[in-house]
Amino acid sequence: MTGTDEPDAPGESAKVPTDDVPGDWPVELAGVTESLVTTLGPNGRWNVAPLGLFADDPVTATTWGRTRTRRNVERTGEGYVQFVTDPVTFVDAALSIVEVDDPILERAHAWARVEFERTASGTEDGTEWVRWKLTPVESVVVSSGVPTLSRGLGAVVEASVAASRLDVPGYDDAACRRTIAHANDVVERAGSPREREAFDRLVAHVDAALELE
Amino acid sequence: MTGTDEPDAPGESAKVPTDDVPGDWPVELAGVTESLVTTLGPNGRWNVAPLGLFADDPVTATTWGRTRTRRNVERTGEGYVQFVTDPVTFVDAALSIVEVDDPILERAHAWARVEFERTASGTEDGTEWVRWKLTPVESVVVSSGVPTLSRGLGAVVEASVAASRLDVPGYDDAACRRTIAHANDVVERAGSPREREAFDRLVAHVDAALELE
Repeated sequence: MTGTDEPDAPGESAKVPTDDVPGDWPVELAGVTESLVTTLGPNGRWNVAPLGLFADDPVTATTWGRTRTRRNVERTGEGYVQFVTDPVTFVDAALSIVEVDDPILERAHAWARVEFERTASGTEDGTEWVRWKLTPVESVVVSSGVPTLSRGLGAVVEASVAASRLDVPGYDDAACRRTIAHANDVVERAGSPREREAFDRLVAHVDAALELE
Repeated sequence: MTGTDEPDAPGESAKVPTDDVPGDWPVELAGVTESLVTTLGPNGRWNVAPLGLFADDPVTATTWGRTRTRRNVERTGEGYVQFVTDPVTFVDAALSIVEVDDPILERAHAWARVEFERTASGTEDGTEWVRWKLTPVESVVVSSGVPTLSRGLGAVVEASVAASRLDVPGYDDAACRRTIAHANDVVERAGSPREREAFDRLVAHVDAALELE
């Protein structure tokens, strides 16, 4: 990013940032909110990955294993947390390596530049986890709308979580596959075109991963 | 309702309707969007029930069995379709009889007064379904915000659908119970206080229903 005070606006003029609240989150957090975080890699590009935000005080997030997100925040101490509900963007970030030139995703409804501070770590089922305290230092609301409930979107998210746990120690593979199958039923019955596209990509990512083994 | 031109504003002043677009939906529909519909019962009160909106052209919805929603729209030809993301309101409407004095729900982010026209019917697994064409004649956006992804909210919705299918012919009871159990895990791990409250109520409704048998 060339200037955090003047974030590159995405292509559509309707999406020019409309609100700037330094030091605060751009959305109300409760329970766990699924976000995507961009972190700067050693190659100068921004890695995109899911990050669950725990609405503790302060907000925390946990990385599992030596992921790119963890390595990047260990090196840079920061990332851009984005609120994205586009199912295709979410699936790609959850199940493949996505790197972009600009830290702000085109589909972000809101984002926050966040400082990461390591507060705890441990090992579970052989995977080292690190808990981070997240402090927003800049935040922008890009677009808002009327919130609605979509079973298809929920199914895509749930299936992405399950797919990312396939063959991971500590998770029941059969249960993950049942979750994905149920989500497939929901998306076939109730999914929007974009949710169907996301599910197709999810299946492609999982197949690709299985073929690599 | 005493005057559809001047809907009773809910208690909070921040929620006074801000937009009025007759003849259009107040939100963008794609795939199936889960709504709650209020329909006027013969007792003069408004029944609240879930209604999945299919984003066909025109928008359609299907009622299953001789529900209150179906009987009320057969008699009155209309209902108020509302976009609500509050998990407790959704669970109560899905799994219990809810009747209110005002057709507009306090938690609605947006609503539309809709004319229902019967377009098809049939029988599946012994349940008579009716498909309705929905035509909005008045619509209001009450509040908007930054859309976010919550696994807890998705889990509550999915569990509500599964719970409403328990002991219904044509649905696999064991699969419904697995869905509810998985949702319980998600809510325990990632749920907000409001999502936890909704799940507790879901369990109470299901227990109450099972005891009535």
